[in-house]
Amino acid sequence: MKLEDLPTPCLVLDRGILMRNIERMAHALGRNAVALRPHMKTAKSIDVARLVLQGQPGGITVSTLAEAEYFAAHGITDILYAVSITPQKLDQVARLNASGANIIVITDDPDTATAIASHPQPPRALIEIDTGEARGGIGPEDDSLLEIAGRLGPRLAGVMTHAGHSYGARRVGEIIQIAELERSGVVHAAERLRSAGHAAPIVSMGSSPTAMHAEMLSGVTEARAGVYMFGDLFQAELETHGMDDIAMTVLTSVIGRRPGWLLVDAGGLALSKDRSTEGQIKDYGFGLALDLEGRRTYGDAIVRRAYQEHGLIELDPGRMVEFKVGDRLRIAPNHTCMTAAAHDRYHVVDGGDDVLAIWPRVNGW
Amino acid sequence: MKLEDLPTPCLVLDRGILMRNIERMAHALGRNAVALRPHMKTAKSIDVARLVLQGQPGGITVSTLAEAEYFAAHGITDILYAVSITPQKLDQVARLNASGANIIVITDDPDTATAIASHPQPPRALIEIDTGEARGGIGPEDDSLLEIAGRLGPRLAGVMTHAGHSYGARRVGEIIQIAELERSGVVHAAERLRSAGHAAPIVSMGSSPTAMHAEMLSGVTEARAGVYMFGDLFQAELETHGMDDIAMTVLTSVIGRRPGWLLVDAGGLALSKDRSTEGQIKDYGFGLALDLEGRRTYGDAIVRRAYQEHGLIELDPGRMVEFKVGDRLRIAPNHTCMTAAAHDRYHVVDGGDDVLAIWPRVNGW
Repeated sequence: MKLEDLPTPCLVLDRGILMRNIERMAHALGRNAVALRPHMKTAKSIDVARLVLQGQPGGITVSTLAEAEYFAAHGITDILYAVSITPQKLDQVARLNASGANIIVITDDPDTATAIASHPQPPRALIEIDTGEARGGIGPEDDSLLEIAGRLGPRLAGVMTHAGHSYGARRVGEIIQIAELERSGVVHAAERLRSAGHAAPIVSMGSSPTAMHAEMLSGVTEARAGVYMFGDLFQAELETHGMDDIAMTVLTSVIGRRPGWLLVDAGGLALSKDRSTEGQIKDYGFGLALDLEGRRTYGDAIVRRAYQEHGLIELDPGRMVEFKVGDRLRIAPNHTCMTAAAHDRYHVVDGGDDVLAIWPRVNGW
Repeated sequence: MKLEDLPTPCLVLDRGILMRNIERMAHALGRNAVALRPHMKTAKSIDVARLVLQGQPGGITVSTLAEAEYFAAHGITDILYAVSITPQKLDQVARLNASGANIIVITDDPDTATAIASHPQPPRALIEIDTGEARGGIGPEDDSLLEIAGRLGPRLAGVMTHAGHSYGARRVGEIIQIAELERSGVVHAAERLRSAGHAAPIVSMGSSPTAMHAEMLSGVTEARAGVYMFGDLFQAELETHGMDDIAMTVLTSVIGRRPGWLLVDAGGLALSKDRSTEGQIKDYGFGLALDLEGRRTYGDAIVRRAYQEHGLIELDPGRMVEFKVGDRLRIAPNHTCMTAAAHDRYHVVDGGDDVLAIWPRVNGW
């Protein structure tokens, strides 16, 4: 099967680029002697997980219990569910753990810690530390750290943090600084726990930018990173990878033409309405159109408007090409996690336009 | 089952509000003696289709061939696929039509018209007319109208247009003006075809705002509208319905707290990254938090940030309430089509918190 034969819109995943991205991160973390616990929230695919786990301890990170179910069913048992747990979700975690999984949950809330410890089949838990993102977590110096630890008791497995604000950095130098604050904050929290007599075997940090660029990860036991596997326009603007390192694109068909513009069948649902590059140096609208082989043949052909099923591409005046209805393009996404989530499978290529495999995804909750 | 028992995030659909919205549109179109060909791109549900088709001729509109397959399998045969067809998609349309469906396609392209007419099992087709949206379609006076009609030959079934720019209107008076331009443009195109000896039995217009507010629809045979069934914050700001007429919301759980803010488990995937209200009078961020019964108990509790699985709600300083982890909220969406698409089912309520039914959706392509 060829890309030309696929119904559009659909996802294309380039295995060669994926492997390059995987190897780059493995090398960066290996340099710092830190294990990778890959975040599968981007790929949501067992086939991708198998590639990224080569040479790693085998644990993964997930963002939904649907992912936890799916990966556990495919034999991955060491799973960190890295979104704060609620008491109501503990039964589902317990069911999965009873059937052979080992799901670790996270919390930053004393009452939830009590709910975890008092559950009939309590999972292990990490305390979420806020090292600057101001989303979830308590500060490394927060008084409640020891209270939560006390309530978790023997279920406490350590600490975790996520420096998601690294995506707001403008230069690699800034990412390096954020990575050090992330590292020192979460390590300090672990040390506070140990000084108070608690075990904290897991010290988990992560975001693709900080995992890639951290200069030193002393005291950290694992890094979580996911979006780097696929890359996207936003990350390319952060310079965490190049424009040629975007592994996942959306295959689309031209469905209309007007002077200077193309209408395609990838709109807001197929691309997502994510506008991550809006505040960056270059605004890529809802995505950048590439040719069928994934090359930037058409220059700045940018999806300026995204309706539900229509994308409107402004053609680059310097690269005018004659298109006809039915011609194929590939759209590089702003934010690959959001774009992938609208689709249920990847069509895998390796360079060229031969479809080598179809890999399913697990969506929803 | 109660809403409190559902895993979060998930969709809640209030049947009473849905029915009210359905009746309001039926009344508006009945006043103008125009049939409704409901656009199922929002609801993507046979259960909703059955409600909205009561008292109507029975034809529907879809935005994907996946919807066409699904609705045809559920016995709805008269289907307008209202996104420009490509030659490659004609085989799938032909297969569906051979199995009993009657899918009508649209085009604005002479070469595609030739491809339609020369297909071994050609579908009927409408010519898309641009009445001001500047997305797809040719102008009512465009020279190519008769050329496309000539190429379609006996497969020509009429004309259609979509005044999507009505969503950019700021007042109802402006919507009324756009509706009249939409009507007069598409009717004029039909008259040009008839003057040249072509049949044009179908004159289809539509967008929820223009279908609702048009003062006169003379010459139009059907209106397509979909998003009005559910409503959303953006439409409420357009005043096409009230804030109490939002039928679909996202049920979510509190997963974290910090002073003045709540973290919930509905993020960019569960809500979508749509920012339709950004340019409106009031910016609702990524959605507005309501209580478990769908009331605005918390004032302006707005989802200001949306990460993949985390939503960050800024609490209204005038309505401070003490929440705990696990508490439930419902989020009214910016743009209901985008939000619904991340979910595979509706949990149906009617007022209260009893889950009366689960209705599946058809997503993807």
